[in-house]
Amino acid sequence: MEVDPKRFLDDLHKLRAFGASGVGKGVVRPAFSQADIAARKWLCERFAQAGLQVEVDPMGNVFGLAEGRSLLLGSHSDSQPEGGWLDGALGVIAALEVARCCDGISVVSFQDEEGRFGGLTGSSVWSGYTAQEDVDKTVDYQGLSLLEARRQIADMVTGPVSPEHFKGFIELHIEQGLTLHAAGEQIGVVTDIVGTREVEVTFEGQQNHAGTTQMHLRKDAVQGMVAYISALNERFRNVVTPTTVWTTGHVTVHPNASSIVPGKVSFSVQWRDADADRLRRMETIVRETAQDIADQAGLATRIGPMWQLEPTPMDNALRAALEGAAATVAPDAWRKMPSGALHDATNVARLMPVAMLFVPSIDGVSHAFDEDTAERDLVAGLQVLAKAAHALTGKV
Amino acid sequence: MEVDPKRFLDDLHKLRAFGASGVGKGVVRPAFSQADIAARKWLCERFAQAGLQVEVDPMGNVFGLAEGRSLLLGSHSDSQPEGGWLDGALGVIAALEVARCCDGISVVSFQDEEGRFGGLTGSSVWSGYTAQEDVDKTVDYQGLSLLEARRQIADMVTGPVSPEHFKGFIELHIEQGLTLHAAGEQIGVVTDIVGTREVEVTFEGQQNHAGTTQMHLRKDAVQGMVAYISALNERFRNVVTPTTVWTTGHVTVHPNASSIVPGKVSFSVQWRDADADRLRRMETIVRETAQDIADQAGLATRIGPMWQLEPTPMDNALRAALEGAAATVAPDAWRKMPSGALHDATNVARLMPVAMLFVPSIDGVSHAFDEDTAERDLVAGLQVLAKAAHALTGKV
Repeated sequence: MEVDPKRFLDDLHKLRAFGASGVGKGVVRPAFSQADIAARKWLCERFAQAGLQVEVDPMGNVFGLAEGRSLLLGSHSDSQPEGGWLDGALGVIAALEVARCCDGISVVSFQDEEGRFGGLTGSSVWSGYTAQEDVDKTVDYQGLSLLEARRQIADMVTGPVSPEHFKGFIELHIEQGLTLHAAGEQIGVVTDIVGTREVEVTFEGQQNHAGTTQMHLRKDAVQGMVAYISALNERFRNVVTPTTVWTTGHVTVHPNASSIVPGKVSFSVQWRDADADRLRRMETIVRETAQDIADQAGLATRIGPMWQLEPTPMDNALRAALEGAAATVAPDAWRKMPSGALHDATNVARLMPVAMLFVPSIDGVSHAFDEDTAERDLVAGLQVLAKAAHALTGKV
Repeated sequence: MEVDPKRFLDDLHKLRAFGASGVGKGVVRPAFSQADIAARKWLCERFAQAGLQVEVDPMGNVFGLAEGRSLLLGSHSDSQPEGGWLDGALGVIAALEVARCCDGISVVSFQDEEGRFGGLTGSSVWSGYTAQEDVDKTVDYQGLSLLEARRQIADMVTGPVSPEHFKGFIELHIEQGLTLHAAGEQIGVVTDIVGTREVEVTFEGQQNHAGTTQMHLRKDAVQGMVAYISALNERFRNVVTPTTVWTTGHVTVHPNASSIVPGKVSFSVQWRDADADRLRRMETIVRETAQDIADQAGLATRIGPMWQLEPTPMDNALRAALEGAAATVAPDAWRKMPSGALHDATNVARLMPVAMLFVPSIDGVSHAFDEDTAERDLVAGLQVLAKAAHALTGKV
């Protein structure tokens, strides 16, 4: 049985109505908001209408189970405080449409992917990576704890859902980047969810009068940062690939006054890549360059503790099915690519084989009301997901 | 009659006792504080004992007048909220000691050089550069207005003091920089008080996800700033002299988050030099480089209004007297140099010929409790001032 693009798009717009912002197609549907809870109840109905057995676990993850061991498809239906209509929602509604047409397909909408209470909270607890009792203490910006928030869905909860139901997991998601849009392509088959490293680098020099301190006698921390970031760009060149990224997004200057030679600057250096070995080589460059610049400029340097997330490779068999389907649906308009963002698939990978596919984000925009994707690309994503699911379940 | 180094140092330490911080030799003697007012009363006594006619103008500037038209020496006796013992005080006490030994010398301690109510406030009003009624509305960080502060010295005020009393002004001051200390020299004869230009440069790019946005698709404002400051350093090389300085001391990044490609950065660019033409050529580089970098990096740029202070050249005759005296007192241990900091002499130059001389600051430290100068350098400064005063008044 074929998927129905019109029914799929209709359902996507119906889900959008829960928390519609009234600004473009944007939504305001954070985890455990009234709009989110209403949307989850609507999903329960839709899953049941598709012949799936509805289960809601204590975190609010909503499952529609096929009979027997099945392939799980899905994503999340909560949004950023000011979010787009497709981030998460696309993967849930596409999974529902595939489940309608293909036996052996279960569906999930994870809860709080967007991190009102941390980040990827629903899939993190479900995968056993974080304990419910620990994360229950987390409070949102208004001081509400997750434990209190979960009371609002107590009537929906059916109980824990065993990962043993599932053979694997595939998540369709918008890219949230510019790669596919800029290349005019329709589909990205994810090779890995990249790993991330982040440190805070500090340079300390000598705070001084910006009028009376000659240039050659200065120990200027901002000039140290400028030399460091330039050197890092240069030295990374021999190590990186076109998909490696690095960012200095946070900068603090002390005392931050225009007439004072800055004595201290701290700034973030974050780098992401799918290859753990490359991440290690970049770390060496980050550390050695800081020392080299400090030595040259007469500054002191220190590097804070490193925050790290390991790369998650996608499962070969699931990936092959997606690649085969992409080559059929969108010949010459698809590519293999890493995911630079984290997704629920990162957590699910602790339990079972996972894979992901992307459709383009117009102008790369996401986490904003004007997030969007061309309808033909949404449908292409649905079709690739459906073909891969058919191939993997063997039940065309 | 010769100056008396011991009496001079004794008086310097007596002035230090007003507002002594108890931390090293530091003082807490901001304008119109109890310590400042008490110090001014003590100065009045000292000036009178030296045979000078004491006058206090409505701003609290304290004058000790010689008979007839005279050469004015002095500086200021107010301090930073946490200040050193020599900043300003040295010039006042050295002037007093010279006046004791040399006819035709008047002395001044200007009020609020350190800017509780603006900056160089006393000399600014005295020179007519700012109107008393305008600056009277200025409030300090505690909300006290200058008008209210001035009420505390109402009993001291004798009335306005005409600039017609004076033929010229010489200010001895600590350097507050590293130049003399680093060179092991004792005296700096100031050529010019440098001019200052300052603008805020903004680069605007595209705020984006630091994981999903490939490097070649980014419009990263911080990377723009890094390229800009590097290019500025490079392009200034053909224009500057060893005494030219430029500084980026204030930086604001938006949204300033480590996982977001920064969409906007604003930062100060300040440059100082004694030559107005060089300041203009640097301005051209500041503006052209911003546009070049913006074009290369796909960023937008804008440059805010320029704040500017013109350079103040020192008077040739007064300078020549200081240079002659320096060559006698400290042969091979003096230099001509610009003043990178503003001083009361900048304002007094609106009324009469002015000149300045510097003694070293140990490690270049100033505006801090541990500001200090070797005693032999303090005495050398006194002796150069005395010799120049004798030569200029012709009354040895």
